[in-house]
Amino acid sequence: MSDPRVPAGPRRHLLTVSDLTSDDVARILETADGLASSLDREVKKLPTLRGRTVVNLFYESSTRTLASFELAAKRLSADTMSLRSSGSSVDKGESLKDTAATMAAYDPDVIVIRHPAIGAPQVVARSTQAHVVNAGDGKHQHPTQALLDLYAMEEALGRLEGLHVAIVGDVLHSRVARSLVQALALVGARSTVIGPPTLLPRGIEALGCAASTDLADARDADVLYVLRMQRERMQAGEAFVPSLREYSALYGITPERVRPGQVVMHPGPMNRGIEIDPRVADSDAALVADQVRAGLVVRMAVLYDVLTVAAVRAPVTEAVA
Amino acid sequence: MSDPRVPAGPRRHLLTVSDLTSDDVARILETADGLASSLDREVKKLPTLRGRTVVNLFYESSTRTLASFELAAKRLSADTMSLRSSGSSVDKGESLKDTAATMAAYDPDVIVIRHPAIGAPQVVARSTQAHVVNAGDGKHQHPTQALLDLYAMEEALGRLEGLHVAIVGDVLHSRVARSLVQALALVGARSTVIGPPTLLPRGIEALGCAASTDLADARDADVLYVLRMQRERMQAGEAFVPSLREYSALYGITPERVRPGQVVMHPGPMNRGIEIDPRVADSDAALVADQVRAGLVVRMAVLYDVLTVAAVRAPVTEAVA
Amino acid sequence: MSDPRVPAGPRRHLLTVSDLTSDDVARILETADGLASSLDREVKKLPTLRGRTVVNLFYESSTRTLASFELAAKRLSADTMSLRSSGSSVDKGESLKDTAATMAAYDPDVIVIRHPAIGAPQVVARSTQAHVVNAGDGKHQHPTQALLDLYAMEEALGRLEGLHVAIVGDVLHSRVARSLVQALALVGARSTVIGPPTLLPRGIEALGCAASTDLADARDADVLYVLRMQRERMQAGEAFVPSLREYSALYGITPERVRPGQVVMHPGPMNRGIEIDPRVADSDAALVADQVRAGLVVRMAVLYDVLTVAAVRAPVTEAVA
Repeated sequence: MSDPRVPAGPRRHLLTVSDLTSDDVARILETADGLASSLDREVKKLPTLRGRTVVNLFYESSTRTLASFELAAKRLSADTMSLRSSGSSVDKGESLKDTAATMAAYDPDVIVIRHPAIGAPQVVARSTQAHVVNAGDGKHQHPTQALLDLYAMEEALGRLEGLHVAIVGDVLHSRVARSLVQALALVGARSTVIGPPTLLPRGIEALGCAASTDLADARDADVLYVLRMQRERMQAGEAFVPSLREYSALYGITPERVRPGQVVMHPGPMNRGIEIDPRVADSDAALVADQVRAGLVVRMAVLYDVLTVAAVRAPVTEAVA
Repeated sequence: MSDPRVPAGPRRHLLTVSDLTSDDVARILETADGLASSLDREVKKLPTLRGRTVVNLFYESSTRTLASFELAAKRLSADTMSLRSSGSSVDKGESLKDTAATMAAYDPDVIVIRHPAIGAPQVVARSTQAHVVNAGDGKHQHPTQALLDLYAMEEALGRLEGLHVAIVGDVLHSRVARSLVQALALVGARSTVIGPPTLLPRGIEALGCAASTDLADARDADVLYVLRMQRERMQAGEAFVPSLREYSALYGITPERVRPGQVVMHPGPMNRGIEIDPRVADSDAALVADQVRAGLVVRMAVLYDVLTVAAVRAPVTEAVA
Repeated sequence: MSDPRVPAGPRRHLLTVSDLTSDDVARILETADGLASSLDREVKKLPTLRGRTVVNLFYESSTRTLASFELAAKRLSADTMSLRSSGSSVDKGESLKDTAATMAAYDPDVIVIRHPAIGAPQVVARSTQAHVVNAGDGKHQHPTQALLDLYAMEEALGRLEGLHVAIVGDVLHSRVARSLVQALALVGARSTVIGPPTLLPRGIEALGCAASTDLADARDADVLYVLRMQRERMQAGEAFVPSLREYSALYGITPERVRPGQVVMHPGPMNRGIEIDPRVADSDAALVADQVRAGLVVRMAVLYDVLTVAAVRAPVTEAVA
């Protein structure tokens, strides 16, 4: 089953933020900006990726992220094929490697993968010749979320360099937090992760952030980035926090806790009344809808980037099969 | 999260039949008729809505209605994105308002929504700038079903004005019945709802119909409109009717109960042998397949109508964002 | 509900392998070959079926086969609509005949159906005017699988005539085995089905194969075709084989059991370590990825074939409505 058509040279993927340079980030955000202008026109479809195929391989239910990737591909005129697997019944015990090989046999240009296992996107990248985009692997990485957050921040605040972003909540289980901390460091912004001690992973500072258990340390931040509190963590008897009520009392973002001039972000879906007060969610300070909008153009930019930039860099080895 | 791009003026939606004028109905049916002619050609796709995006947001499983809307959008060359939510697991406890805001961030031209809660389409219309089409909200309304039924009736009988339509069955739980009674009144037809007393809502006559518990009152009707008997009503121990057998004996539509010249309609899916005898379902009097066919062209017409007619009426405020 | 537009003459379907002539098989494989060349170009989409509609009606969950048919239709620029039904909840007790009639009302050009009941594709063919392709009916037939297997064999071995194919495993429950035995006979190849006595159906030789319980009889075969061992058969207490371990010991395909020069095929998904050793699955002898690739072009060829060849043969009666 070895495939002689897998090119020997480097292919462009988006697997983790740590693979990106600051130039990569700048280029993707600029592409996204150009696409955003084009979407303001009445007809919102571009012929850029006509005839290309994007396969979405989702091993975790995520209606929202999947919808965002599907629409991004369609707006660029690519064909999409989405496979959702909610456990062993769908893939019938087949290994990820075999599923990837099956998908690869269709010669997709891009495989977008979400998987509960850390490193799954790397497995797919190794066993196929497609460009691979990580749409979330376990607690590890969610790079397009980080990029869309940068885009939304820059759009709202006019710059990224020198910003201070406080990331509040369940940092331990959050691939969003991990990716964002690294992405902020790349663009010259700094971050502080804040949460109860049980939800702050040891040694997180190695990623390039400060860490604190005191929400007061978010006071001077330009951005309050509120993480989703996963109710499952509480209900399964995992005693990460004593109760949702206590969590809300200490870390819930109420209007009083938002300094004038701060913007508030959340990756969605929000638990109104738990990690974020409805009055904050509905205020002008909240960028939640802007983030969703950013998600579309940034994912369009990423699809464009993995498919086209590599070809320019490595014209011989990178022709799309 | 307030969105300055939500236009101040009126947008065209299809939320309930009561919002429609008789002119609106005539225009939509005429558009559907034109589209039906175009579909008779070998290539069945029209470029009308190229570059437009239709989001289908379905909170109740309805393979058939969703398929009809998806195909209607595709036949007009629109892009579609369908989100199905079968309860809290998919939307992870997110409020309808937040989901709508998320969808709105993608700037869809139309949001088609089916939801178990009455008034959900209005919520979506208020919190987005999309044109909203109600594909069924609770027991309340199902306006495209009513319009397609009018279309199929006119096609079969040559007219709508002056017709008498007997609507038989579980009127209490039927949004189909509610919408149809109102739509018939708009076009100058009259209706009688007929069923066991437990399944006739009090005061239904206020919608503009007669009500009866005696199937003999359907004898002079031009159309026998048979409602689906929801087995769930029986099985869940809700004693709306003593038994399916008794229901069938009193209200099941057998060949003997169809007057020559009457046509028989059913919104599908049929429970053969319960509310409708298979011999009736398979007879030439039954318009069931015609209704499905009507559903496609009427939904195409509705998508076209909400997107284009409004722009003509209110050119300044109504440019589609 | 009789439909005057159902043409009186023959329509082309692909219901079972027994309907095919050797000329049909040769023509479909040749078409597939032409399509494969076209897919090697950078832009992999052909305008061949633009404006046509392919409905996928899947009553058994089969992410892989459905994806293959969807992508085949999209690569030919057809519109697709996929309906999955995982039991009574989705079709709400509706009969297959009524569902087919509903689908037919949308005037699809092709209906691809997978159904647990033998003969379901014939029911759909009778009650609609669409061209019908069987994507698997019960234990009976899976003709596109047989055709793609022929394609992959010919690609790997340069010929079909005179080949000997050993089909190993759970023949009893396998529509793949039944279809393949018949297809091999059509092209002048011979086959031997091999498995434990409980999994060899009596009288299978009538389809045109030899039968054996001894894996040694696969020794002289050109192709080792390994069937999927359905774990469900073991777990449900159906004592078709004493244990998976014993099954593997007797019939599992290990490197030692593959003669040099033999190729190994498997319809997927593989149970590594049960019916096939991972070292075999990953060896150059395995054609599994080639089969998946063949599936795409063969299904494209089948869609093209049913839609166009019939029209040539019967120009008057066969105009697609």
